[in-house]
Amino acid sequence: MKDSIGFIGMGSMGLPMALNLIKAGFQVTVYNRTHNKAEPAIKAGAKSAKCPRDLLSDHAIIITVLSNDQAVEEVVFGKGGLGEGLQKGHIHLSMSTISPDTSKKLHQFHQDKGADYLVATISGRPEGAAAQKLWIFLAGVQRAKERVASILQTLGQKTFDIGEDPIAANIVKLCGNFLIISAIEAISEASMFAEKQGLDRTIIDKVFAHSLFACPIYQIYAPIIAEHKFEPAGFKLSLGLKDVNLLLDAAKKCEQPLPLANLVHHRLLSAIAKGRGEMDWSAIALGSSEET
Amino acid sequence: MKDSIGFIGMGSMGLPMALNLIKAGFQVTVYNRTHNKAEPAIKAGAKSAKCPRDLLSDHAIIITVLSNDQAVEEVVFGKGGLGEGLQKGHIHLSMSTISPDTSKKLHQFHQDKGADYLVATISGRPEGAAAQKLWIFLAGVQRAKERVASILQTLGQKTFDIGEDPIAANIVKLCGNFLIISAIEAISEASMFAEKQGLDRTIIDKVFAHSLFACPIYQIYAPIIAEHKFEPAGFKLSLGLKDVNLLLDAAKKCEQPLPLANLVHHRLLSAIAKGRGEMDWSAIALGSSEET
Amino acid sequence: MKDSIGFIGMGSMGLPMALNLIKAGFQVTVYNRTHNKAEPAIKAGAKSAKCPRDLLSDHAIIITVLSNDQAVEEVVFGKGGLGEGLQKGHIHLSMSTISPDTSKKLHQFHQDKGADYLVATISGRPEGAAAQKLWIFLAGVQRAKERVASILQTLGQKTFDIGEDPIAANIVKLCGNFLIISAIEAISEASMFAEKQGLDRTIIDKVFAHSLFACPIYQIYAPIIAEHKFEPAGFKLSLGLKDVNLLLDAAKKCEQPLPLANLVHHRLLSAIAKGRGEMDWSAIALGSSEET
Amino acid sequence: MKDSIGFIGMGSMGLPMALNLIKAGFQVTVYNRTHNKAEPAIKAGAKSAKCPRDLLSDHAIIITVLSNDQAVEEVVFGKGGLGEGLQKGHIHLSMSTISPDTSKKLHQFHQDKGADYLVATISGRPEGAAAQKLWIFLAGVQRAKERVASILQTLGQKTFDIGEDPIAANIVKLCGNFLIISAIEAISEASMFAEKQGLDRTIIDKVFAHSLFACPIYQIYAPIIAEHKFEPAGFKLSLGLKDVNLLLDAAKKCEQPLPLANLVHHRLLSAIAKGRGEMDWSAIALGSSEET
Repeated sequence: MKDSIGFIGMGSMGLPMALNLIKAGFQVTVYNRTHNKAEPAIKAGAKSAKCPRDLLSDHAIIITVLSNDQAVEEVVFGKGGLGEGLQKGHIHLSMSTISPDTSKKLHQFHQDKGADYLVATISGRPEGAAAQKLWIFLAGVQRAKERVASILQTLGQKTFDIGEDPIAANIVKLCGNFLIISAIEAISEASMFAEKQGLDRTIIDKVFAHSLFACPIYQIYAPIIAEHKFEPAGFKLSLGLKDVNLLLDAAKKCEQPLPLANLVHHRLLSAIAKGRGEMDWSAIALGSSEET
Repeated sequence: MKDSIGFIGMGSMGLPMALNLIKAGFQVTVYNRTHNKAEPAIKAGAKSAKCPRDLLSDHAIIITVLSNDQAVEEVVFGKGGLGEGLQKGHIHLSMSTISPDTSKKLHQFHQDKGADYLVATISGRPEGAAAQKLWIFLAGVQRAKERVASILQTLGQKTFDIGEDPIAANIVKLCGNFLIISAIEAISEASMFAEKQGLDRTIIDKVFAHSLFACPIYQIYAPIIAEHKFEPAGFKLSLGLKDVNLLLDAAKKCEQPLPLANLVHHRLLSAIAKGRGEMDWSAIALGSSEET
Repeated sequence: MKDSIGFIGMGSMGLPMALNLIKAGFQVTVYNRTHNKAEPAIKAGAKSAKCPRDLLSDHAIIITVLSNDQAVEEVVFGKGGLGEGLQKGHIHLSMSTISPDTSKKLHQFHQDKGADYLVATISGRPEGAAAQKLWIFLAGVQRAKERVASILQTLGQKTFDIGEDPIAANIVKLCGNFLIISAIEAISEASMFAEKQGLDRTIIDKVFAHSLFACPIYQIYAPIIAEHKFEPAGFKLSLGLKDVNLLLDAAKKCEQPLPLANLVHHRLLSAIAKGRGEMDWSAIALGSSEET
Repeated sequence: MKDSIGFIGMGSMGLPMALNLIKAGFQVTVYNRTHNKAEPAIKAGAKSAKCPRDLLSDHAIIITVLSNDQAVEEVVFGKGGLGEGLQKGHIHLSMSTISPDTSKKLHQFHQDKGADYLVATISGRPEGAAAQKLWIFLAGVQRAKERVASILQTLGQKTFDIGEDPIAANIVKLCGNFLIISAIEAISEASMFAEKQGLDRTIIDKVFAHSLFACPIYQIYAPIIAEHKFEPAGFKLSLGLKDVNLLLDAAKKCEQPLPLANLVHHRLLSAIAKGRGEMDWSAIALGSSEET
């Protein structure tokens, strides 16, 4: 019999993930701060909880997919939060992109309670989540990893085991987003240059995304950048800035200068200032074209 | 019967390409300024010419694979150069990475002589050239493209047709190299960050080169960067700097700022100053690690 | 008769400032967390308090010169802090370089207590403080400014009135430090370039610090950079990084990209990683020379 | 009796300089490619020559103030150029901002002819030239320096002796312009930040140009940047870009990365692309404000 799962966070990623779990036969109870966002999951067969803590009475495994550190902290440490009920036997599978520091604090807290804190960060856009095509970066204690294996198989196309320290999966996620936004900047500059030289911006997609760079990221973003099709957002620019901020803050703490990360941070911040926070984060490409 | 070809340039790319043509049954006559570099080709069955011009008496198709603008200009405009013999019916298949401006000048010159100037830039490292795995970016007049189709099939795994204007293939090549060196910088920074956070530098290869970035460039360079294995060079750093200089010069002329290109230029120039010109150009990764 | 003053913070800036006030005839009581740092002031005639709050019984004017946000918050909000005694009639003259956000919070707190919160940020190095040559940037309510006028005259060579909003003086201070570290980077790069071209690094000082840039900052830093005389520190690199962090954090919040601030941040962070936190912040010049 | 002088170049700097020499009693013959630009000098008492070479028959001292390398090369090596007449006893006082490489070539050429090549680069804007307030950076052989001392005293407020190698004065000039444009960028970013924080942009001028940075450059540019008064140009942005290009080209050759120079180059190139080549080069400040 399939596990039962408590699922917190019905955002653009969390909802399709929860729906896939329900479809796959898991018993799912959902919680979302804004209740009506949980309705599609309830219609699909999920039960609903009034607060995070209540999930713990029926479910040993709790998944959180939230948008930032504060949201995760509230769900754990807030009134009615998981912190009020966590104990030995519970697994908290934390799938949000959050700072290594917050993750460390959560890890310590779970250890103190006797519960297992697993981090399984994810890479993919909402359509990828719906299609069970997420890439998953998993880290934490072995016994808990085994317990969630079938869940992760349902959610993604592949799970990478990053080791025993759960924080490592947060680090990997920050690296992944950095690699993506760096590729976006490179494609943007190359596209602008090609266009200025009389070629069509689509050349980057047509040639490179099907040869040297024949991989998901270039094949997703090169056409978006060529066509300047930044809406609707697959991944919101404001969230992209948040993630690069997490990276740069962590880099600051470990005293590692990252000039390319600074460059894309500059692009993202400038785009936010121009009111593009709701666009796809590849809209930093507009920065290149506005410099001329 | 296979075409006969005059082949100029027996460097680390030109030689394996010429050998592949000989093996495939083309009649090949080679020329190299330093004669002894041509010997492997002669042993494999090539004839040898005393000067570029002499190639034109027996061969309608001349291929040049040279290391920079000056070398190409010398081969065409120098004493005993192609310029002394080029005429209607000749095809010059120019495969070097050179500046758009020099290429324009060559194009005009060939037109004036009635000869066809084709540009077929290539992407790949010496082992890729040997394995007939080059990516080829071809541009120029249609009739000439048809004449060289079987040659290019022998040399590479795929030819992209970039259009009628030969210069476009030079532009595409500069874009490609820029995308590669940008990916190298991104991988380098991500690797350093991961290492500082207690992970192994190989994580970028293990995770991302086999998921989001499962493509040749990330699979080639992520392990090189993780292991700091910058020798022997697949593509020399000094040549990489030359190419980024070509890009930045062209960008300057068309008034397009390219901040990421500036960043990698900085890395390359610093590496040259530290005596790393003979290393693989991914040795810019040392720049990241020396900042801490 | 001269005012009596409570003075908190006996660091490299605070101590010479307190000594000047004592010498000028003010009644000064000092407080420092590490008591023995207060001894020179006590020898010079100051009284000593056990905690910040105790200063408020005898002194209407409290000066704080502390090294960061945390230190100021502790002195105000901590146990035995000013917060336990502040009331109408008290003036807190805050002279530390802190974040605009912390300053806003302090301002609100003082208003709630009925006390006046004045900000008088200072620019100068320890020898400048000793010589009463500080530049002072003063902002806050008019009545309080008048009360501290003679104090500031004792401490500095000139006071600039920045207006009624105390936070403005924090902003101005961040701008000033940014201008200084930017000049340091410019001098460093120019010096390295000149040297590489066969000139002496001192040329920047000899020529420009006595013509186009004949002003204190260039005359202080150009010789330091030419001679690589980064110890002892006039202003510690670790504090410089802290201030640029304050600037960049504030810029992030108001969505203003500052590429030159990013560049100097990179230099400072790299210098910290290399163990130069105790050197003068102009030691970022070593970054330029290590790139070649 | 005052020397007689041949003066080539009646641009925005050359003309007021020539007028000052005439006023001071020097015998001046002028040459300008576009003849009518020489008229104000002729009205003021100058004679006029048909070509540079003709100046050499009556004048042992020739001054050139031209806008770029090409113009100087043409005046020396072109038909009717100085090269056709230069010989022992002639002094060519070269005051243009040109590349170290071109200057080396000129130096060699003059040596071969037996003539003295002196470099006296200048810093100042047209109104400074008119007011005899130029800063002059002089390098070359001693005997020639002595011959031109009274001329330089007439033109500027101070002459710095940079040594015996004339090229050193070209290097110093490039350093000077780099320091200026770096200060412009710093002032621009600080002004934008201050404005975003609710202060007036003029604060940088009011506070810093009269304290830490109380020197000509900050006092000239801080108000221009605060008021966005970029026209008429004191120094054209297109010429500024040319000078930074000279610096970066020289830095490339001596393998010295200059990240701040790259940053301002980016700003200048972007401004050129936006059609601001005729504005004052401090118009790069618009780049900062357009990023938000």
